[in-house]
Amino acid sequence: MIQASIIGASGYAGGELLRILLGHQKVNLRQVTSQSKIGELVSSDHPNLRGATRLIYESLGDLKKCDVLFVSLPNGISMEYMEKFQKLAKKIIDLGTDFRLNSIQDWETWYQIPHKNPALLKQFVYGLPELHRKEIQKTSYVAGPGCEATVSILTLWPLIKHKLILPEPIIIDAKMSSSQAGNKATAGSHHPERTGVVRSYAPTGHRHTGEVEQELAVGAARPKVAISATAIQMVRGLLVTIHVVPNKNVTEIDIWKAYRQEYGREPFIRIIKQKKGIYRYPEPKILQGTNFCDIGFEIDSHTKRIVLIGAIDNLTRGTAGQAVQCMNIMFHLPETTGLEFPGLHPI
Amino acid sequence: MIQASIIGASGYAGGELLRILLGHQKVNLRQVTSQSKIGELVSSDHPNLRGATRLIYESLGDLKKCDVLFVSLPNGISMEYMEKFQKLAKKIIDLGTDFRLNSIQDWETWYQIPHKNPALLKQFVYGLPELHRKEIQKTSYVAGPGCEATVSILTLWPLIKHKLILPEPIIIDAKMSSSQAGNKATAGSHHPERTGVVRSYAPTGHRHTGEVEQELAVGAARPKVAISATAIQMVRGLLVTIHVVPNKNVTEIDIWKAYRQEYGREPFIRIIKQKKGIYRYPEPKILQGTNFCDIGFEIDSHTKRIVLIGAIDNLTRGTAGQAVQCMNIMFHLPETTGLEFPGLHPI
Amino acid sequence: MIQASIIGASGYAGGELLRILLGHQKVNLRQVTSQSKIGELVSSDHPNLRGATRLIYESLGDLKKCDVLFVSLPNGISMEYMEKFQKLAKKIIDLGTDFRLNSIQDWETWYQIPHKNPALLKQFVYGLPELHRKEIQKTSYVAGPGCEATVSILTLWPLIKHKLILPEPIIIDAKMSSSQAGNKATAGSHHPERTGVVRSYAPTGHRHTGEVEQELAVGAARPKVAISATAIQMVRGLLVTIHVVPNKNVTEIDIWKAYRQEYGREPFIRIIKQKKGIYRYPEPKILQGTNFCDIGFEIDSHTKRIVLIGAIDNLTRGTAGQAVQCMNIMFHLPETTGLEFPGLHPI
Amino acid sequence: MIQASIIGASGYAGGELLRILLGHQKVNLRQVTSQSKIGELVSSDHPNLRGATRLIYESLGDLKKCDVLFVSLPNGISMEYMEKFQKLAKKIIDLGTDFRLNSIQDWETWYQIPHKNPALLKQFVYGLPELHRKEIQKTSYVAGPGCEATVSILTLWPLIKHKLILPEPIIIDAKMSSSQAGNKATAGSHHPERTGVVRSYAPTGHRHTGEVEQELAVGAARPKVAISATAIQMVRGLLVTIHVVPNKNVTEIDIWKAYRQEYGREPFIRIIKQKKGIYRYPEPKILQGTNFCDIGFEIDSHTKRIVLIGAIDNLTRGTAGQAVQCMNIMFHLPETTGLEFPGLHPI
Repeated sequence: MIQASIIGASGYAGGELLRILLGHQKVNLRQVTSQSKIGELVSSDHPNLRGATRLIYESLGDLKKCDVLFVSLPNGISMEYMEKFQKLAKKIIDLGTDFRLNSIQDWETWYQIPHKNPALLKQFVYGLPELHRKEIQKTSYVAGPGCEATVSILTLWPLIKHKLILPEPIIIDAKMSSSQAGNKATAGSHHPERTGVVRSYAPTGHRHTGEVEQELAVGAARPKVAISATAIQMVRGLLVTIHVVPNKNVTEIDIWKAYRQEYGREPFIRIIKQKKGIYRYPEPKILQGTNFCDIGFEIDSHTKRIVLIGAIDNLTRGTAGQAVQCMNIMFHLPETTGLEFPGLHPI
Repeated sequence: MIQASIIGASGYAGGELLRILLGHQKVNLRQVTSQSKIGELVSSDHPNLRGATRLIYESLGDLKKCDVLFVSLPNGISMEYMEKFQKLAKKIIDLGTDFRLNSIQDWETWYQIPHKNPALLKQFVYGLPELHRKEIQKTSYVAGPGCEATVSILTLWPLIKHKLILPEPIIIDAKMSSSQAGNKATAGSHHPERTGVVRSYAPTGHRHTGEVEQELAVGAARPKVAISATAIQMVRGLLVTIHVVPNKNVTEIDIWKAYRQEYGREPFIRIIKQKKGIYRYPEPKILQGTNFCDIGFEIDSHTKRIVLIGAIDNLTRGTAGQAVQCMNIMFHLPETTGLEFPGLHPI
Repeated sequence: MIQASIIGASGYAGGELLRILLGHQKVNLRQVTSQSKIGELVSSDHPNLRGATRLIYESLGDLKKCDVLFVSLPNGISMEYMEKFQKLAKKIIDLGTDFRLNSIQDWETWYQIPHKNPALLKQFVYGLPELHRKEIQKTSYVAGPGCEATVSILTLWPLIKHKLILPEPIIIDAKMSSSQAGNKATAGSHHPERTGVVRSYAPTGHRHTGEVEQELAVGAARPKVAISATAIQMVRGLLVTIHVVPNKNVTEIDIWKAYRQEYGREPFIRIIKQKKGIYRYPEPKILQGTNFCDIGFEIDSHTKRIVLIGAIDNLTRGTAGQAVQCMNIMFHLPETTGLEFPGLHPI
Repeated sequence: MIQASIIGASGYAGGELLRILLGHQKVNLRQVTSQSKIGELVSSDHPNLRGATRLIYESLGDLKKCDVLFVSLPNGISMEYMEKFQKLAKKIIDLGTDFRLNSIQDWETWYQIPHKNPALLKQFVYGLPELHRKEIQKTSYVAGPGCEATVSILTLWPLIKHKLILPEPIIIDAKMSSSQAGNKATAGSHHPERTGVVRSYAPTGHRHTGEVEQELAVGAARPKVAISATAIQMVRGLLVTIHVVPNKNVTEIDIWKAYRQEYGREPFIRIIKQKKGIYRYPEPKILQGTNFCDIGFEIDSHTKRIVLIGAIDNLTRGTAGQAVQCMNIMFHLPETTGLEFPGLHPI
């Protein structure tokens, strides 16, 4: 059994990790921490786990050595303590933003605070299995991608790699859920204000832009990516509508081929493009709790544009599920272990 | 491996059965039927199962023998074909209404059509494991309880058995979800009309009344149960607020004792009654996809009343999950097999 | 023109008052206060009023004399300042809890803090027009009923007055919206936690019980009322399902007669009881923004019970609209002035 | 008083027209028709109007002459009967698609059926007051714009007119509500399937494209417009996120100026762009029932793009409210008459 611990388990990402790891047949979840809730039952924050575990939040200082450490801390904190964490476990999977970007310049551009440990940046592999499986197999340190970056990169990457689309413009219109903003109540998350919104919370300047551009810099040109994010009535889930320009004479068959070639054997990617039915394109509502990334597309002959559609659960595929998929790769387990939940319908 | 088939798999109950049985490590799901969709992929109705199965709807006439047959047909149909089904499988679990009531009089009172095969009524055991586990172990035929009946009976039964409450009045105020009405679009299920309703769709005359009264007739008096059902903004889930009158001097400790004695070892019942937090009482939203029945209560000293609160997922614990729990009992498997999903939070 | 001011205009009740009074053809809204937001535009809190007003929050100390003062302050504050407010305006309509109960004992039972100005209690009339129209015409001081009390009293009162039901048990199962808890963000109002709940937030001990019992003490016996409140997925609106026991031989016609006799000429009460259609009973979703109280009922022959159903918008009929209706009565205007909005469908 | 009648009043657009016209102080609503519901009360379809009117659906053949006729019929029907309608009223406002496009070629491109009365096309003025006020004042016949076209054109037009953006690419990412699809129940509108979706129902090929391009052909170049429409959890409302490319050196001030110059005196357009608060950009949820079109924008320095945001209520500003605004213009009334409702908050 893999001995695992979680640092920062009281948030939504931590809760989703708890759910998955408690059901993972090869993992023994040893310790979880929350500095503000030491001594409390984890089920006080995560009521779905009532009866499933008697785990109690412990202090960082009480952490014992383990095989793999999941770190789920706010931006800028992880980089401060990472060297200490490295003494606790050989393998570390960080869910935060601190080690996602390879370049210190990129980090400071998008996060606008100095990085406290730039030397560590190159030790971390960007934890997107479909793009970096081989590196993840060998590395000790994984930086989990952002949820918005995950779905955008997975949707775009085969078309860029196969040179089917121009590196610019790439316009990502993201429809976001409320759990993405975390578990702290704010004026904007107050139910009467947040319910039913179509809130343009980040029309420009989304921080995941850096990650997306880094990962899509396949071959020559680094693409320019424009993200506009709108929060809608949804607790879990994320859908991107991506508007791109095809290279000349690109056909539907070319696109199918690119996706099939890159993802044909991927256990967590499904190409969804149906002629009839009510779930003809990717739909995040039926992905809740699953590790799938569903991808669809349509060619717009009127404007010579391709519309790509990608959907995930931001907490599972976008955070905790993907982290566990990386762990499975790092420990040479079948990738789907612990991630078998197919999702609910209706929901 | 248990060879299982499903008759009537295109509805919501059938879809939930498919999801659970496909993930059940001791079951091989052989065949599923839908008379109107022969030859279509089951994932055309159940998009969460895309990639999880290549099963195709077959015709009733093509069903082969199997170990257990799940029957999910509209009211009044199952009774017509049951004798044929009995030739296909030794064990049958019927999810419909036709065999739930022991008495032909009760059946005709609540369903108001003649029963076509009253002789079969006594062959079926009412499939509520907590009340009928021993009979379920021995029987070949189980009739799955209605969702509203399931949660009402489980919530009330220990207090009636322990003579803590009067058999009358028992007022069940049920808050219902849209999936309970099935997968056929109607004027009332049209999204602009159904969204956000607080619709008193059955203030009186709810058909599950007969089941609830039958099962709560513990010892002497048969109770009189009044159900009022209100449809609210919810796709999955069911909560009952039950108003009852205690016998003299009943205390909170008495109630705790009754629940603990009856349910202390039950894997799918949790008593939820907390002093703080935001999930202090049962909450159906975090039970989606699970087989739990969560129960809470409060004594009203002002009016000498007890308020009981019960919550389930109507499709899992209220239908398909409970049916699989019964199957596990019939085949002497651990009861939680295939029903391990703990539910999501947030959702 | 009536010169009106609002004390405490930054909350949801204050915002709804602003909306109604700004559109009221006989009112000039002069000043509004908020101690914490002095100098800010009211539209910063109430974005629906952008462009409709340039009003700015002022300090209590800057209030000038006016014809009518609306007071919308937290529990326990209004009683402290009321004598000062009385110097500012001849007529006062208080939307809070401090002056709703006639009896100091009742107040302290339900609010469990001492009342600071019990002498004032008898100066205030309970502002429910259908029950107290004549007193409201003559009084200078009105205490606006609670939203839950408003709909419960209006639904029950004709049946109690006409002796059609027993004074006990009266069980009120209330389905509540999130705006009732006010505009302050809390852990429980955080969107991922509050969305889709069926939360038993007050199974017993609801504070409006005192008001309801006071107002229903028609003739001899004071009834005993049991309220259980469940918060559901709804921002505005309130529905009560009330379970009562009829006196012998009460028929549907008796109930129709009682409602028609008491409410036949009421502009804001509609009896909703249809045999077909999808809005057969009262439905709060189509009452948003209106001053209606819709009432329906059904007799349960199985358990000798009557189920009453009442629905309102908690912020309009339950608070601000009703206050304006009282103002109209106090100033001898047509009662519907400023309250003409019929509600939206679909919504 | 203006004598008005509505042809086709049983749908959602008809219901919204009824609501507005019944509250319009200069209009006497004489007759309404529905071929399938002759003799029924209009409130059977529009429950918000219970008590507000005793109008009954009449047959087309029973229509009497009136001053203005509103026509709300399915695509392709209006063109067949329009000449008959012209005998009934001097002024006609058609809410459908049949007379929106000036060019028969455009019509047949986007609707793909032959137009039965192309000669009439040039008699109709496109009923967008901000662009065609003078023509509307003089015309007898108005074709009401589509909802998606309304908000897109209003948001884009000042920037195109002032040459601040390129005519291509113009990418409109529209977030749509369920009422836009009308009041007929379908498999896709079934509540369990439609709730919570992020459904890419028209990634390409949206029919309003023709209208938008026609109206934005200001001066020389006809722009190319790409619309992608996603249905989200919303009953009423529509938000467009529009991605465009600025001409060189365009600043925020240039954009403000363009909007102010074109819309500074418009009663129903508000520019919403705030630095703080939770309603910093246009938000359809607070526009329900109002005739406002709220517009916001942001410049993306990273990709040299402008993001425009427009929001309306699809049934009010997008259909019935705009039609009444046109009627007010045609009859030389103040434009806001009957359209004073400011919207609700919270909601």
